[in-house]
Amino acid sequence: MSARAGIIVTGTEVLTGRIADRNGPWVSEQLLGFGIDVAHITICGDRPDDLTAQLRFLVDEGVDLIVTTGGLGPTADDLTVATVAEFCGRELRHDPELEQHITDILLRWRGIEGRLPEAAAVGVHEQAYVPDGARHIPPTGTAPGIAIGRTDPLPAIIVLPGPPRELQAMWPAAITTDAFTEVTASLPVFAQETIRAYRLSEAELADTLRSAEQLVPGFGSLEITTCIRAGEIDMVTRFADDGREAYASLLELMTERHGAQIFSTDGCTVDDLVAAALAGRMIGTAESCTGGKIAARLTDRAGSSEYTAGGVVSYSNEVKTSVLGVPTELIAEFGAVSEQVAEAMADGARRVLGTDIAVSTTGIAGPGGGSAEKPVGTVCFGVSLNGAPTRTLTIRFPGDRTTVRALTVTAAMHLILETLGA
Amino acid sequence: MSARAGIIVTGTEVLTGRIADRNGPWVSEQLLGFGIDVAHITICGDRPDDLTAQLRFLVDEGVDLIVTTGGLGPTADDLTVATVAEFCGRELRHDPELEQHITDILLRWRGIEGRLPEAAAVGVHEQAYVPDGARHIPPTGTAPGIAIGRTDPLPAIIVLPGPPRELQAMWPAAITTDAFTEVTASLPVFAQETIRAYRLSEAELADTLRSAEQLVPGFGSLEITTCIRAGEIDMVTRFADDGREAYASLLELMTERHGAQIFSTDGCTVDDLVAAALAGRMIGTAESCTGGKIAARLTDRAGSSEYTAGGVVSYSNEVKTSVLGVPTELIAEFGAVSEQVAEAMADGARRVLGTDIAVSTTGIAGPGGGSAEKPVGTVCFGVSLNGAPTRTLTIRFPGDRTTVRALTVTAAMHLILETLGA
Repeated sequence: MSARAGIIVTGTEVLTGRIADRNGPWVSEQLLGFGIDVAHITICGDRPDDLTAQLRFLVDEGVDLIVTTGGLGPTADDLTVATVAEFCGRELRHDPELEQHITDILLRWRGIEGRLPEAAAVGVHEQAYVPDGARHIPPTGTAPGIAIGRTDPLPAIIVLPGPPRELQAMWPAAITTDAFTEVTASLPVFAQETIRAYRLSEAELADTLRSAEQLVPGFGSLEITTCIRAGEIDMVTRFADDGREAYASLLELMTERHGAQIFSTDGCTVDDLVAAALAGRMIGTAESCTGGKIAARLTDRAGSSEYTAGGVVSYSNEVKTSVLGVPTELIAEFGAVSEQVAEAMADGARRVLGTDIAVSTTGIAGPGGGSAEKPVGTVCFGVSLNGAPTRTLTIRFPGDRTTVRALTVTAAMHLILETLGA
Repeated sequence: MSARAGIIVTGTEVLTGRIADRNGPWVSEQLLGFGIDVAHITICGDRPDDLTAQLRFLVDEGVDLIVTTGGLGPTADDLTVATVAEFCGRELRHDPELEQHITDILLRWRGIEGRLPEAAAVGVHEQAYVPDGARHIPPTGTAPGIAIGRTDPLPAIIVLPGPPRELQAMWPAAITTDAFTEVTASLPVFAQETIRAYRLSEAELADTLRSAEQLVPGFGSLEITTCIRAGEIDMVTRFADDGREAYASLLELMTERHGAQIFSTDGCTVDDLVAAALAGRMIGTAESCTGGKIAARLTDRAGSSEYTAGGVVSYSNEVKTSVLGVPTELIAEFGAVSEQVAEAMADGARRVLGTDIAVSTTGIAGPGGGSAEKPVGTVCFGVSLNGAPTRTLTIRFPGDRTTVRALTVTAAMHLILETLGA
């Protein structure tokens, strides 16, 4: 009644740490949506022996499905299709129609980007081989995918390209192949619920979950995972139909103990909530230590022009004064990292940008610039809202420059949300 | 003469895709620096059986070293130490000194963050168990690491915590354990060289590398990996001492064919080069579609206040006009996404921010807002440099909103670099 999968991510550039893999987590999340548990994600370089070893490992672990990503390109180290075919004992067959299809895609691209036709043609020919009895998944870039149906003792195998954009665009076709639907046909439906909290420690949550083992009937039917991310903690619970009451009871316990920290129980992010809370009002930013990251975060969402006017990155004191109108005396008296300056920045941003609300940050992200009184990690915030007194706040964050900046952005989002009275 | 390692990343939150793993790539890169090849990275959830299966797989693959990350926290699903100990057939022993050490760390934290003492105390006790004969690695958060020396047929095993900040802070102690130095003692030294190019296609590079097989004597002694990232392509080559001449010859061939696209042959990033090229001059930004990402990128670097004054995020047309002084008629006549407006934005930013140079972006990141004439992905750039005519440029990027914004930031960095005459 349940299915397990393994994901193999190939690519020396991922294995050696030069780029972070985005495909493993993405595919895993998609599979979970089908009720397919991912038991293992494995990453290997461009050595066929290592890929074969990982295929063998997953088969030995008895998974029902293997998804591979990467190694489908035109370069000599792209060997996934040949390796998978050999592992399955299937011959590779050249597919002239597929070659023509890829060629057409490349010709369209060349019209725009002027790619080299000769080098490309060699690559296209290489990319148009399909294992015997397998189905190809049409490429959106130039690399086709492959779907191989289950043939005991081998599980179903779906072969997808490495570039996340291509992989994601090909996913809808991949999940409609017979190879895939044979796996999902008999699976029960799982629900997944997410509780998000801010400023709740992992230890406190662990304590509550230990209590829940005693207090929540049917707690064992819930599969709970927690995840800390830039000052927020997410708790995701998966359960089949018979776990619904247990989850309701757990949610009640969580709300009772951590209601003040929980900001979302329906999967909404703080970004969603800020967008909703603005409700037609316009927001602006005045950023020093975050250097534009709050504005970038606000505008990450499609349609954010509905509520985001823009911002001022006042990294230097001169810009704080000349653009935002922060009095030089204020900076001289209290320092650039002070609630007084944060207040003047927020007020200035709201005035200059003509918005209903503005948030400001000024702090010491490090590694240099700290003092005994204002150590690295000290950040002052201001929020200026039309018709309300401007609020200010100081937080000392732990961690290095990147961490302090990330924690500051999250804190600013929550400060905006609180100020809007959500 | 060489060593192979496996990395096991634990954590259901990583396996299920809710967070991207940062530890596997980081540890892999560190190990490579010691000449240790990472053959496999495997990711598993918080199920002991799956972790055991991965340990078994790596032992069967004959690796000399296993590094595990995660699963050392105080919650019930943190089972790495117990599972590794059982796998190695070692008893767990409680270490009262270690418990006191962790308690001291928590007390210090509590003074600042007010953590719950009772919940924490239970967790600390759990975290103070060490497998028989193993050495603990002092915690920087609250979770100690573990180092277990090689005992044939088992490889050396280093157990580290999941939070990247903690793991990285504990790394210097981990690599000075006997368990680790026994692995590295006899390894030869490898060199690693990086060539970075912008606007070079993967197919062109693949073609050159195919030629290099014929043209470069000793090409086989080079281990080459390529990696595409937001419009840039990195080519990393590793070689032992006997590959030095082959690499010099390859570098010559690359420069001959792709000299116009190659911007770095010494590992420098475009960020490094922009910082150097500014040479005391101040830079500012005027961002529409990138929403602050260029300013955020410039200020990611410690010490960036030396050359970054700040920026204006003019997401709305009102802010383009009111803050940057872009004439409303210009926007009405040519549209907000036009080289004319990009030029006025860059000039306005340089004037308003008082900088020597300013870069601007205005484009359609999508998913909405595109037209036949200006489809999604169309971005106009401007660069205003003191004493030079303002340059403008239009690029049509492929991909979704996130991709277009990322490609735009990279393009802006290269445009700055080109304009500064580097």
